[in-house]
Amino acid sequence: MKILILNGPNLNLTGKREPEIYGHQTFEDLMTELKSEFQDIQLTYFQSNIEGELIDALQKANENHAAVVFNPGGYSHTSVALSDTIRAMKIPVIEVHLSNIFARESFRHHSLTGASCVGSISGLGMDGYRMAISYLLRKNLSDQGQ
Amino acid sequence: MKILILNGPNLNLTGKREPEIYGHQTFEDLMTELKSEFQDIQLTYFQSNIEGELIDALQKANENHAAVVFNPGGYSHTSVALSDTIRAMKIPVIEVHLSNIFARESFRHHSLTGASCVGSISGLGMDGYRMAISYLLRKNLSDQGQ
Amino acid sequence: MKILILNGPNLNLTGKREPEIYGHQTFEDLMTELKSEFQDIQLTYFQSNIEGELIDALQKANENHAAVVFNPGGYSHTSVALSDTIRAMKIPVIEVHLSNIFARESFRHHSLTGASCVGSISGLGMDGYRMAISYLLRKNLSDQGQ
Amino acid sequence: MKILILNGPNLNLTGKREPEIYGHQTFEDLMTELKSEFQDIQLTYFQSNIEGELIDALQKANENHAAVVFNPGGYSHTSVALSDTIRAMKIPVIEVHLSNIFARESFRHHSLTGASCVGSISGLGMDGYRMAISYLLRKNLSDQGQ
Amino acid sequence: MKILILNGPNLNLTGKREPEIYGHQTFEDLMTELKSEFQDIQLTYFQSNIEGELIDALQKANENHAAVVFNPGGYSHTSVALSDTIRAMKIPVIEVHLSNIFARESFRHHSLTGASCVGSISGLGMDGYRMAISYLLRKNLSDQGQ
Amino acid sequence: MKILILNGPNLNLTGKREPEIYGHQTFEDLMTELKSEFQDIQLTYFQSNIEGELIDALQKANENHAAVVFNPGGYSHTSVALSDTIRAMKIPVIEVHLSNIFARESFRHHSLTGASCVGSISGLGMDGYRMAISYLLRKNLSDQGQ
Amino acid sequence: MKILILNGPNLNLTGKREPEIYGHQTFEDLMTELKSEFQDIQLTYFQSNIEGELIDALQKANENHAAVVFNPGGYSHTSVALSDTIRAMKIPVIEVHLSNIFARESFRHHSLTGASCVGSISGLGMDGYRMAISYLLRKNLSDQGQ
Amino acid sequence: MKILILNGPNLNLTGKREPEIYGHQTFEDLMTELKSEFQDIQLTYFQSNIEGELIDALQKANENHAAVVFNPGGYSHTSVALSDTIRAMKIPVIEVHLSNIFARESFRHHSLTGASCVGSISGLGMDGYRMAISYLLRKNLSDQGQ
Amino acid sequence: MKILILNGPNLNLTGKREPEIYGHQTFEDLMTELKSEFQDIQLTYFQSNIEGELIDALQKANENHAAVVFNPGGYSHTSVALSDTIRAMKIPVIEVHLSNIFARESFRHHSLTGASCVGSISGLGMDGYRMAISYLLRKNLSDQGQ
Amino acid sequence: MKILILNGPNLNLTGKREPEIYGHQTFEDLMTELKSEFQDIQLTYFQSNIEGELIDALQKANENHAAVVFNPGGYSHTSVALSDTIRAMKIPVIEVHLSNIFARESFRHHSLTGASCVGSISGLGMDGYRMAISYLLRKNLSDQGQ
Amino acid sequence: MKILILNGPNLNLTGKREPEIYGHQTFEDLMTELKSEFQDIQLTYFQSNIEGELIDALQKANENHAAVVFNPGGYSHTSVALSDTIRAMKIPVIEVHLSNIFARESFRHHSLTGASCVGSISGLGMDGYRMAISYLLRKNLSDQGQ
Amino acid sequence: MKILILNGPNLNLTGKREPEIYGHQTFEDLMTELKSEFQDIQLTYFQSNIEGELIDALQKANENHAAVVFNPGGYSHTSVALSDTIRAMKIPVIEVHLSNIFARESFRHHSLTGASCVGSISGLGMDGYRMAISYLLRKNLSDQGQ
Repeated sequence: MKILILNGPNLNLTGKREPEIYGHQTFEDLMTELKSEFQDIQLTYFQSNIEGELIDALQKANENHAAVVFNPGGYSHTSVALSDTIRAMKIPVIEVHLSNIFARESFRHHSLTGASCVGSISGLGMDGYRMAISYLLRKNLSDQGQ
Repeated sequence: MKILILNGPNLNLTGKREPEIYGHQTFEDLMTELKSEFQDIQLTYFQSNIEGELIDALQKANENHAAVVFNPGGYSHTSVALSDTIRAMKIPVIEVHLSNIFARESFRHHSLTGASCVGSISGLGMDGYRMAISYLLRKNLSDQGQ
Repeated sequence: MKILILNGPNLNLTGKREPEIYGHQTFEDLMTELKSEFQDIQLTYFQSNIEGELIDALQKANENHAAVVFNPGGYSHTSVALSDTIRAMKIPVIEVHLSNIFARESFRHHSLTGASCVGSISGLGMDGYRMAISYLLRKNLSDQGQ
Repeated sequence: MKILILNGPNLNLTGKREPEIYGHQTFEDLMTELKSEFQDIQLTYFQSNIEGELIDALQKANENHAAVVFNPGGYSHTSVALSDTIRAMKIPVIEVHLSNIFARESFRHHSLTGASCVGSISGLGMDGYRMAISYLLRKNLSDQGQ
Repeated sequence: MKILILNGPNLNLTGKREPEIYGHQTFEDLMTELKSEFQDIQLTYFQSNIEGELIDALQKANENHAAVVFNPGGYSHTSVALSDTIRAMKIPVIEVHLSNIFARESFRHHSLTGASCVGSISGLGMDGYRMAISYLLRKNLSDQGQ
Repeated sequence: MKILILNGPNLNLTGKREPEIYGHQTFEDLMTELKSEFQDIQLTYFQSNIEGELIDALQKANENHAAVVFNPGGYSHTSVALSDTIRAMKIPVIEVHLSNIFARESFRHHSLTGASCVGSISGLGMDGYRMAISYLLRKNLSDQGQ
Repeated sequence: MKILILNGPNLNLTGKREPEIYGHQTFEDLMTELKSEFQDIQLTYFQSNIEGELIDALQKANENHAAVVFNPGGYSHTSVALSDTIRAMKIPVIEVHLSNIFARESFRHHSLTGASCVGSISGLGMDGYRMAISYLLRKNLSDQGQ
Repeated sequence: MKILILNGPNLNLTGKREPEIYGHQTFEDLMTELKSEFQDIQLTYFQSNIEGELIDALQKANENHAAVVFNPGGYSHTSVALSDTIRAMKIPVIEVHLSNIFARESFRHHSLTGASCVGSISGLGMDGYRMAISYLLRKNLSDQGQ
Repeated sequence: MKILILNGPNLNLTGKREPEIYGHQTFEDLMTELKSEFQDIQLTYFQSNIEGELIDALQKANENHAAVVFNPGGYSHTSVALSDTIRAMKIPVIEVHLSNIFARESFRHHSLTGASCVGSISGLGMDGYRMAISYLLRKNLSDQGQ
Repeated sequence: MKILILNGPNLNLTGKREPEIYGHQTFEDLMTELKSEFQDIQLTYFQSNIEGELIDALQKANENHAAVVFNPGGYSHTSVALSDTIRAMKIPVIEVHLSNIFARESFRHHSLTGASCVGSISGLGMDGYRMAISYLLRKNLSDQGQ
Repeated sequence: MKILILNGPNLNLTGKREPEIYGHQTFEDLMTELKSEFQDIQLTYFQSNIEGELIDALQKANENHAAVVFNPGGYSHTSVALSDTIRAMKIPVIEVHLSNIFARESFRHHSLTGASCVGSISGLGMDGYRMAISYLLRKNLSDQGQ
Repeated sequence: MKILILNGPNLNLTGKREPEIYGHQTFEDLMTELKSEFQDIQLTYFQSNIEGELIDALQKANENHAAVVFNPGGYSHTSVALSDTIRAMKIPVIEVHLSNIFARESFRHHSLTGASCVGSISGLGMDGYRMAISYLLRKNLSDQGQ
């Protein structure tokens, strides 16, 4: 089972900027942890600040991955194009937000991309990615068990 | 570690009504599963259709539980009172929705109660509760480890 | 054929308060009249000011009644939870309002609960209940005739 | 007692178009049924797709009828002019909609014409007309009885 | 100088309905008065409840009249089509409303048709028509004087 | 009969600024014309750019004038305070706007002050004042004739 | 193949009013051109300023035409009734607007009637009608070819 | 003179939770103080988190109290049902809020319940209750003095 | 202790206009009463219809008074400038409204100035001023007692 | 004559994903067809998922093409930047949408990019491109003929 | 070259109130600095809390100054009257705000007065005035150079 | 001191397109001027039409520049992602717009990116960049002087 961890704008800085708020953990650290935790899953990672490159990445993942865990960052609230891409995919996409989007500015309350995903997890920090993978793994096992 | 699973209006019918949509699993079944899966945690369960009884339950849990996993159902989108209750609590509350609230009618896009919670999980069905507990457990362990 | 007449908040006062506006007829009086008029139907009556008790009553009626005639009062315009309950019921629910909701304040123009009902009758006073029952009776006969 | 059954745009096609949704009953059929059911009432019928002809018909009915049962179709949601006409009438007008307007697109939730009527019935199909007439008949009898 | 007095929906009833509010003066009475007051002007009168007939009347007046005094009634607030007609006319149109539209329901505050007219007069009752004619007469004289 | 012509902000510049748009006529010119035209009426004039001075002027006029012709300029659309003043007056106030407020930016479509006046005239330029006075004069004569 | 070219309010004036904007071509000229261009198609033409007559025309065309090319003019943005008519038709309707509705006032951005049509063409002037017919012709050929 | 002090959701916790913000005073303490301060008034106290129980309490108070001082907490902003109850009462109800509702989130700016009360006091902390009682007492004395 | 009673637009007329609604009591009468009631407090009074003079008065009071009781009248709902002034003051300001602002037109529901005050009292008539002073007095005593 | 066919996000998948909805035709197929159909026109094709690359492509086409047929996909509804680019171009741009944007979610009803184009065609599937080219060709011929 | 520095409500307190936020610099200090910095320019200064006095000042400056640097404070967001004044001026007006208006409450995001100015500078503190003058100076020199 | 001049979409065309509006000056010209004017500052320049490349550029500048002068063009009004990037930067960013954004379409009135910047300058053309640099230079000197 091959899962893409896909991150949108500004998430390349996590763990590097404002560590007093976001902690010192980077996504490189997280990937190392997740790979050791989920050894049966093949995890790949991609980050881009460019909306269209995220669309490209989703389209490609749809060909050769089993699922995507996606944090679209600020594009969540404005991108009809990313939402269209996800809606056309045959593999499940789970949306993850580090912070609780309902507790922030009102323009962050709705997620256009989340509307096209299977589900969404917000406010649980980097553990949100872990939860999403473990959900996908469990789902996969139960589907195989059917 | 004692965690309350708290369910709001109409969730008493899950697994009994519209099984073709929601499946045959009831919350009684889920509790049995979760108790066997998380044997180190003491799980309690309460459901009510009455907004004020949910407020009562949250206030009491705040005295003698370590955390709450809460599905406020239709009250998520309309209850300032429940949101106030959660904001005043000292223990963490995680919001769970069975379905993806971003993919439904626009009056369900925002969650007033979610705005007061630590975070929220939606669209992952009953697995959402499992994810929430496993997040709380992990958090607790890492806090103890500090 | 068993039909529940269900009334929401403040309707317990009809006929007692402001008789110059609402007349002197109480729901007790109405039930007496309706029972004598529709002798082939078993009519039951419940009123509560508590939103969640109305949800409970609807859920129970769904098990052992053929239909509900429901006046949700002020909850019509604010209750996502009651609307969810009605949407999940297998028996028909007809909404009744004593006054014409379109002719009142704009926050009363839309009915969230009405959106989940078969239909709605407003502005015809207590006769609205009579109309609803006679519609259900007629429907039942024509269904039996099929 | 003389009552006008007045229908607005597109209702001339009922029973002829989309019979799988609206059934095979036409308004001609309904009038035959209603005339046999309410033999003490003189029922007249008029339909027009033209907003101003409906205004003309209401103005004339106000002179020589006892009441109007009116389905304004799509004009319900947009016609200030029809609403003004009804407000100026001395005889009661009951609004009827075949489908449940609260369960359709949001631009159909409010009824401008309904705001000027005595009351409104929606979602009960052609039986809505029957209910309206029987309400008017009953009202008339009780007024005569005073 | 030939001026059309054009009235929209329900204005045929003025002076006949609700005389305690609108007085006993009809538009027939007004026309008699105005004709005697403005003997140098040829006044014509037309009323219709039908939006499209008002469009027809405006288009024709544009060919053979010097100006129009127009009370569009309820169509003022909803008719893009009438507004388009007036915008395309080469002769001046003055809008008149019997009542003060700013003092009524909010959906009457804006006038789509007024936006295409030279100007508008509201709240001065039937004198509004007189004011409009005397403005047009004065304008005409001063234009001729140039 | 004593009438106050009251002008709000920026109207002191009329005829002086942008003559290609507003013409060369000043309010001093207009007052001279009006005084010669309406010799039976005592006309007074006041202009201020200060909202509160306009309130003062209205309150004083209410004591010793028969009516006010008022152009509140930009305060029409924003002043709840001026609207309150007019509502409390016992003498009639007619609102006048030089330009057609419906044909300008949307924040100019509604007039808060106009909602408290007897009526309003817009788009007829300086003739609007003349129309207002002649309406008040006529009204006064017909009242005296009663 | 029989196609109705249907025009709404004010379009009877095209080519006659404001030629500097709309050119000198009338719809009579266009029809002559189109008939010579599409000799295999039977083209009929109807224009009305009356909303309800357009509804009548659409209902009739549905019985004996293969398609409609419809320019609803100002009714596009306000007519729920016309939109309902089109939704109930079994033959395709293509909406055409002479000007680009997205580039005009915001109340023209959405088209209620367009929402019920197969598609819509705007901003291409009279060529929009030509494009619509050539689309319908091509569609018809390819359907016959199936 | 008998006055009910009625508190809505979460107010049972005042003085117990977040004392650094709300102080250490509980409503039990306040009642003791108020009873000693207003010895001529019979003060009763009730609190509930359940909307419908507050409706019940208001309906009962209407039978046997002279007035109500009511803090509806979060229900102020959402409860049409409570607002209806107060509107139907014959005794005066004064609304009290501990904090200044205008200085909080915009969904707290308007008070649906306050719209049905005689008046409202917000931002004066527990002294708001004292002010309300002293207003009612004074009013009562002056009414008796009439 | 020196307190300014500050009144905004139109309040100079209270007791003089519409006595059937507002009673015969003027603010001069009220000041006499309040001065006799609160002999330990030095009460000063200022009223202006001019927004900027109210700003001046608040700025000066901030230098040499202990508190302000302020009724901004119609400026409450529109004045960002007054709201800014109050926010910058070091002494407490209590807002008072004679009528219940929640029960009036929707543009009166929110108070921009109230958002910057300590608290607000509305609907209690002239007693609102009395309540505000007695609150400030009590607060002052308890602060001195600390 | 050289025309650019420019496609925005996700359109690279047309004909490959969801063939039951969009058919099996790809844009490569379409280009082959169009090139054979319009042999006098030089057609170039570019697609990108990246908003800024579409801006680049439009800027370059403006230098060396005669026109653009542009389907901006999801960027239509959100891109001020693309709309600015088109507005600054000297060659005509025609917008094409495969589906009828008026019949989809409300956030798709308006087209920011369409507001800067000459016109727009939606709902006619891939034929929309053909229509656009044939319009441009015809326009070009008639311009040359002038 | 003569430039007016014009300040609106509450700006008279800058440097005196809340020095920890706004610093200790007053506008008197700033004027001293600016005069020494721009010795070729004649700088005048006026501040008023009264909206209409600011209008007066702008009208006068238009007669005898070359430009205005204007900070309208809280009136920026509410004053149609000030916006109208600026629109009618022949000399350039530059708007300055001490703080970043986009980073504050949403009712401060738009500037009605700014819409009539040449341009606006916000968030640069007192340096904003310096920037505005230096822009005007440069502009003047380059105009002279033409 | 090293400052990045960063330009968003379409600004590469300034001075090349529509010179009658924007003049003939290009950003290359401006950079030459600025470099000669501010010889103590090291100025770098970057422009991109791609939103994500602007994010990349800002992130890099944050590492090795002292400040950024940024014109986000059309992305100002739509990009949550760019706004997030700026919010996370440790060096100051000043927003510049060539035209006055308050004087254009309403969707340009608010600047999402401006909300995260230190301040913003609009409407001063290319001089806006000069002003921004001179502000940053002055700020830097005064900080060094501390």
